[in-house]
Amino acid sequence: MKTYNYKKSRELFERAVEVIPNGIYVHYSPAPLIPIDAYPFYVESADGSRFIDVDGNEFIDYMCGYGPMVAGYHNKNIDKAAIEQLKKVDTATGAPAVMVDLAEELENTITIADWAFFAKNGNDVTTYSLMVAREHTQRKKIIRLKGGYHGVHPWTQSPDHPGVLFEDAENIIIGIFNDLDNLRDIIKKNKGEIAGLISTPYHHPVFFDSEMPDPGYWQEVEKICREEGIVIIVDEVRTGFRINVNGANETFGFKPDLICYSKAMANGYPISALVGTNEIKSSASKVFYTGSFWFSAMPMAASLATIRELKKTKGVEKMKEFGEKLAEGLSKLAENHGHELVVSGHPAMPYVRLADDPTMKLHQNWCAECTKRGAYFTSHHNWFVSTAHTEDDLKKTLEIAEDAFNALKKL
Amino acid sequence: MKTYNYKKSRELFERAVEVIPNGIYVHYSPAPLIPIDAYPFYVESADGSRFIDVDGNEFIDYMCGYGPMVAGYHNKNIDKAAIEQLKKVDTATGAPAVMVDLAEELENTITIADWAFFAKNGNDVTTYSLMVAREHTQRKKIIRLKGGYHGVHPWTQSPDHPGVLFEDAENIIIGIFNDLDNLRDIIKKNKGEIAGLISTPYHHPVFFDSEMPDPGYWQEVEKICREEGIVIIVDEVRTGFRINVNGANETFGFKPDLICYSKAMANGYPISALVGTNEIKSSASKVFYTGSFWFSAMPMAASLATIRELKKTKGVEKMKEFGEKLAEGLSKLAENHGHELVVSGHPAMPYVRLADDPTMKLHQNWCAECTKRGAYFTSHHNWFVSTAHTEDDLKKTLEIAEDAFNALKKL
Repeated sequence: MKTYNYKKSRELFERAVEVIPNGIYVHYSPAPLIPIDAYPFYVESADGSRFIDVDGNEFIDYMCGYGPMVAGYHNKNIDKAAIEQLKKVDTATGAPAVMVDLAEELENTITIADWAFFAKNGNDVTTYSLMVAREHTQRKKIIRLKGGYHGVHPWTQSPDHPGVLFEDAENIIIGIFNDLDNLRDIIKKNKGEIAGLISTPYHHPVFFDSEMPDPGYWQEVEKICREEGIVIIVDEVRTGFRINVNGANETFGFKPDLICYSKAMANGYPISALVGTNEIKSSASKVFYTGSFWFSAMPMAASLATIRELKKTKGVEKMKEFGEKLAEGLSKLAENHGHELVVSGHPAMPYVRLADDPTMKLHQNWCAECTKRGAYFTSHHNWFVSTAHTEDDLKKTLEIAEDAFNALKKL
Repeated sequence: MKTYNYKKSRELFERAVEVIPNGIYVHYSPAPLIPIDAYPFYVESADGSRFIDVDGNEFIDYMCGYGPMVAGYHNKNIDKAAIEQLKKVDTATGAPAVMVDLAEELENTITIADWAFFAKNGNDVTTYSLMVAREHTQRKKIIRLKGGYHGVHPWTQSPDHPGVLFEDAENIIIGIFNDLDNLRDIIKKNKGEIAGLISTPYHHPVFFDSEMPDPGYWQEVEKICREEGIVIIVDEVRTGFRINVNGANETFGFKPDLICYSKAMANGYPISALVGTNEIKSSASKVFYTGSFWFSAMPMAASLATIRELKKTKGVEKMKEFGEKLAEGLSKLAENHGHELVVSGHPAMPYVRLADDPTMKLHQNWCAECTKRGAYFTSHHNWFVSTAHTEDDLKKTLEIAEDAFNALKKL
């Protein structure tokens, strides 16, 4: 099987480092793409489950833009709705009518949602959720869980990160997912001072296996938080509309006060949302929070179409099924080659690694060999599948993976 | 002259309050639109300098989406570039080539810029600029000026605002624009502790007249900051590409280290940018900062087209000329009616008020009477003009303003 060449990607990158810090900044950056030589940097076009890089190489995309693409690049119904709205109005002096339609759709779709508030970044709404919880409780402290990612605002980072101050996270307490004793201990030590707990519905850190909630974990968290008057905030920026269209909390059997959405909610068009219950609505109303493009209509029309498309096509079930087949197929292949593949997390966004590989090098090399042959796999971040991934994609992916396992032997 | 009816706007708003905190949240919200009955809430479509609300009323738009629209709604060249890019790829697993083109264009256009970094909100880059300044100087404190608006992140707000903590702005010192003694005093009291000064190039608060820098002010600020090793950050989110395409600092004769852009840089498509000098590039590279839609290609293509369009059409000169004619025309009309119109700030984004009106009620009523007749004027925020505003718009606006002055007499 031929492996790819990234000549134009590298030429562009050489221009980029001159005029952009790091050339491509972190997240999608070359940094976590190891070994870096195996990865393209620049995308030329995308359709369905695949993208083509600037060198003309085609990839079955298992990152989906790190989450935003959920119903296929250039999904016809979604793009049609977005472009029709753009032809009328996008950003203007006032809100678009579609903002009300979208808020109503979210209220009808997400079980706990009585209302929705729209912004641009996931981090816009995770930060807003903290402010709402603080206003609601008149308390300062927030528990967030170790390894949880809620954005890049200074409060989400460690004070030893460049540009971050101790004071930025002075009221953030780091807890541990699935550890009720730890939660009880934190609450005991900060009695009456904790405004909110922010957590992803299941734990999906980078560099580590994903962790599902233990049976009874969320139910007990809910009970404790209710007793202590702590606002429960679920960060579904990564899981939203991939696990359960009604909210991942419905899958895990609990009721938060606030849920943060972004990424997949508009199939790639830039939007985020905080949804919440009526009990906390008046506090949400009091916080001053706004942005120049937060009334942009195009992403709202796209989001409405995305949610309807996912419901109509039973998209969540479809992604789960594809993710399960992918895990099964890759695991069998690994076994045939004398490896064990460890797959954790929800099937629609699996965290995958080869076992018995303490330096991660074997796994990195395997992901790299797959990518160089057209199955885009990163090695330290969960993957994402979409409703556009087909049986053909699966077949081709398994062929690529097989060839990559063979290539590993020659390294 | 017939005045407008907002039946459908109000019906939509009644639905909205059920599912959105405040119905429409602050900024564009009904709150600062006084008297509220005079204003539409929902936009149906927009073209050139005008928008049409959901009731079919047409407005000459003097807010331009609070800044983003600079070259006319549905500007053909910009929309064409944006849609062509969308047809290839928008948000995907990797950066688009147009990101490099746009960074190079900014480097070529903005005098101080050696590099650019892209995000979504103005506030994304104002916050990033603080982090970069702190990393660069290894100091904590930031001076921002009273009445300056840099977004909604807790550090930009007062600790007495709902959801904001004292700690959020613990390292923010509030200074006064055009007051060098105040600056010297702050620096003396915080010797060696100040990382950066963030300021708009001229002072454009809400509810107060805009204030141009005194002669020599910025030159002295620059001198002081250089002596003290303080990073100079200019927030051009509102002024960017309206005052000077090469940077408003060129108009005022000084050189900052970092400039924040957003709003007008892509004629309404959602994007922001921090640009800076080579001296600070390595610090910018160290700060961890990213977002799900920050590599979206469509707004980048739109921004490239917007900047080229503004240069090609001498857009900045055109807006200044229109703004001057508007101010002159309205001032004369006011005088004829026994009023004095006070116009401050740059002609492309004038802050306008009627004099001898301590409660602001007369001015509010006049703006309201204009809006109800089709010239959309807010009363507490600077207006914005665009390159799409025409002589016909001016003529119609003056007719409306005349009729509004007459209507004031009957109130």
